[in-house]
Amino acid sequence: MIRVTVWNEYAHEKTDEKVREIYPNGIHNAIADFLRCDDIVVRTATLDDEECGLTEEVLNDTDVLLWWGHMKHQMVPDEVAVRVRDAVLKGMGAIFLHSGHHSKPFKMLMGTSGNLSWREDGDMERIWTVSPGHPIAQGIGRYFELPHEETYAEPFSIPQPDDIVFMGWYEGGEVFRSGCTFHRENGKIFYFQPGHESFPTYYDSNVQTIIRNAVKWACPVKRVDALECPHIKKIGTE
Amino acid sequence: MIRVTVWNEYAHEKTDEKVREIYPNGIHNAIADFLRCDDIVVRTATLDDEECGLTEEVLNDTDVLLWWGHMKHQMVPDEVAVRVRDAVLKGMGAIFLHSGHHSKPFKMLMGTSGNLSWREDGDMERIWTVSPGHPIAQGIGRYFELPHEETYAEPFSIPQPDDIVFMGWYEGGEVFRSGCTFHRENGKIFYFQPGHESFPTYYDSNVQTIIRNAVKWACPVKRVDALECPHIKKIGTE
Amino acid sequence: MIRVTVWNEYAHEKTDEKVREIYPNGIHNAIADFLRCDDIVVRTATLDDEECGLTEEVLNDTDVLLWWGHMKHQMVPDEVAVRVRDAVLKGMGAIFLHSGHHSKPFKMLMGTSGNLSWREDGDMERIWTVSPGHPIAQGIGRYFELPHEETYAEPFSIPQPDDIVFMGWYEGGEVFRSGCTFHRENGKIFYFQPGHESFPTYYDSNVQTIIRNAVKWACPVKRVDALECPHIKKIGTE
Amino acid sequence: MIRVTVWNEYAHEKTDEKVREIYPNGIHNAIADFLRCDDIVVRTATLDDEECGLTEEVLNDTDVLLWWGHMKHQMVPDEVAVRVRDAVLKGMGAIFLHSGHHSKPFKMLMGTSGNLSWREDGDMERIWTVSPGHPIAQGIGRYFELPHEETYAEPFSIPQPDDIVFMGWYEGGEVFRSGCTFHRENGKIFYFQPGHESFPTYYDSNVQTIIRNAVKWACPVKRVDALECPHIKKIGTE
Repeated sequence: MIRVTVWNEYAHEKTDEKVREIYPNGIHNAIADFLRCDDIVVRTATLDDEECGLTEEVLNDTDVLLWWGHMKHQMVPDEVAVRVRDAVLKGMGAIFLHSGHHSKPFKMLMGTSGNLSWREDGDMERIWTVSPGHPIAQGIGRYFELPHEETYAEPFSIPQPDDIVFMGWYEGGEVFRSGCTFHRENGKIFYFQPGHESFPTYYDSNVQTIIRNAVKWACPVKRVDALECPHIKKIGTE
Repeated sequence: MIRVTVWNEYAHEKTDEKVREIYPNGIHNAIADFLRCDDIVVRTATLDDEECGLTEEVLNDTDVLLWWGHMKHQMVPDEVAVRVRDAVLKGMGAIFLHSGHHSKPFKMLMGTSGNLSWREDGDMERIWTVSPGHPIAQGIGRYFELPHEETYAEPFSIPQPDDIVFMGWYEGGEVFRSGCTFHRENGKIFYFQPGHESFPTYYDSNVQTIIRNAVKWACPVKRVDALECPHIKKIGTE
Repeated sequence: MIRVTVWNEYAHEKTDEKVREIYPNGIHNAIADFLRCDDIVVRTATLDDEECGLTEEVLNDTDVLLWWGHMKHQMVPDEVAVRVRDAVLKGMGAIFLHSGHHSKPFKMLMGTSGNLSWREDGDMERIWTVSPGHPIAQGIGRYFELPHEETYAEPFSIPQPDDIVFMGWYEGGEVFRSGCTFHRENGKIFYFQPGHESFPTYYDSNVQTIIRNAVKWACPVKRVDALECPHIKKIGTE
Repeated sequence: MIRVTVWNEYAHEKTDEKVREIYPNGIHNAIADFLRCDDIVVRTATLDDEECGLTEEVLNDTDVLLWWGHMKHQMVPDEVAVRVRDAVLKGMGAIFLHSGHHSKPFKMLMGTSGNLSWREDGDMERIWTVSPGHPIAQGIGRYFELPHEETYAEPFSIPQPDDIVFMGWYEGGEVFRSGCTFHRENGKIFYFQPGHESFPTYYDSNVQTIIRNAVKWACPVKRVDALECPHIKKIGTE
């Protein structure tokens, strides 16, 4: 059983009529709905919850955290962001969605700005499978299309990924590393670009397959207990 | 003074009228022409030369080798390919151009198939700068366009590059990692996708800037003399 | 069920009395013996078998190949080595043991010489866990010791590994990257340094745990069928 | 001309008699002294200086920053650490020395804890050259020895380095990745383990050669001006 927590700042859906129509129960619940199955138990948490719903207890009980945030990155307290980062370093999987590239925990884990170029013209995006043998790409063809997405363009300021699983092509002429894996200490990380709030991206079956695959891929073998810098004794004198 | 050798199989230019019109003296001479300057001395070599013009003496006298091949990869003797690979391992820089992704030395250095998808429809290619701070990208803007190129599409079967410097967007809908760096032992390697024989790509000023930059980047600090697996003595008994 | 093939050149055990005493049925059978269990079915193959026992059929029926070779690397036909490399690129896991760093398939997959420094003084080796969260390190402590091993010393000529799981410290003063992971296209690769024929290394319980872990780790999610460089059609005209 | 700033928390030298004897003018001045030459101009800065001596003006005027800190990491204000990190992302080179693995800017750039195991028994350390062709290793032999150093042991919690240039062997039985390179956006980073305050490490000629090499290696080709996440216009409508 994989224990998933889907975190969403849950802002656009409350203030923007168009977004609410697409995601009436919030993006977090749309994602939770397609993830829930016999092998995956899902909890949601939002910015409005106490401590963003991400207490030590919740993180200890989470194998894989999904993160959607956009307008409210700065409202996440530093101590919550540090707690998330530390949970990843100990082994919790983390999937950062769309504008999560600018979230505090993602930037802390990358060490870079997470910057990119962007425009909102509702371009068609064609997403190419770059690593067809990767667990996250199973069930996805050579490419698939999303009729409308926010355009994200290179340069994307990230350290070299372990693998580029997907790359995006946009109708208007841009390219982007749309699906990238990383690991930091014991935790696996997947960044996945699609998911603008104005489009029904999380109802797309390819997107759902990818996120489901990523949850299974990011689930830790084992949680390592401590972040420590131990004072050791000389071998033989221990 | 950087000592460059430009290698070309030199086949299309001799058999295909259209290609000869574009490159009347061969692709190798078109490249040599724009590289030659006060800081760079250039020699050319082709498949017709004895030992492909790539004797031990020539390679020892080469800081950076450029490689263009397409139809005749299999005509390059294994011992020449091994000699090139070993020269790279000792520190010689290598720039593989266009269909050089399937050349013997490139595949030997990568350990992968070098496969990709391709089509020849003369698409416009827009090449994006992914690593604007990389020495190879200096003087290049956010992107530049080539009116016609052969389309190369992902998946491109290479090990993870050290850096992706450029990515290509094609009019017909594909994406490709168009400029990638690697290093193997002491040698630096750059793969650069543009350069189909049917189009005047090597006369494009951005392409010329990139190749010039790559020559400077790939030039070794120092050539390491030997490929050895030394039998050592215990420290203190040497 | 994981299908394993253990390949051994099987030479020292037949000509050297001391080695035969340690491994009376060959190193391959010593390894096969501790791997066999309800989840793992094991076959062995040696240099004496026709086509080295590594026909297309055998490789298609192998999830993970273990390779032990030392004196007879050059006796492995190129076509067998290429077949092994191609099976890895399609997804077969590969574990190269000890002097397998100089085997044809390992060098083909790495693109480097695989060189290192070495001496045979029977030093004690202490092997440190560098990536405690890695699946291959599960069940291994901070370090373990082998009373006698051949000394391998840096520099070890390999491309940058995906992860360094173990590093070795030798009594006589050397260090080595003793356990390294790589992936090439769809296949996972683990190099593991201990295993000199003159010492009973493969009876050590930590070594057995590591190799067992590595078999599970390297087992492919899915075998990708083909090494292809497809000619594609323009999207919309397919 | 390379513009270097050597930063030191400058604490041990003021409170510990033994350290003051070794570095009467502080570690920063010992380092500055051997770096200064016709090609390198050196400034120093310490924790006591206003804004730690690392104002925007100073960082803009610095090509490569060296960092030595140990007891006082937490006294460096977050805004100074962020300023240093951002300068690196824009292209400033950074060399983190010894216990700088726990400094705020290093941890911010890595995204990991920087943890390691340690003990202070004054072990002899033998440092091995792992990448003999790397610019930072020029002039260094197969290995060199420091009669006494603090022992740092794996696991060292860092992302995979671009290159491991040096690895350390300690008399008491540990190993460590002692010299590692990274790059983050436009900036090059070198971590170098030797340099405990109780030993005269920075007077060692090999250590001096390495740090001098690292300064030249880390010096940026070009400073990129901005950390931006630009809103772009559709191509053709700009």
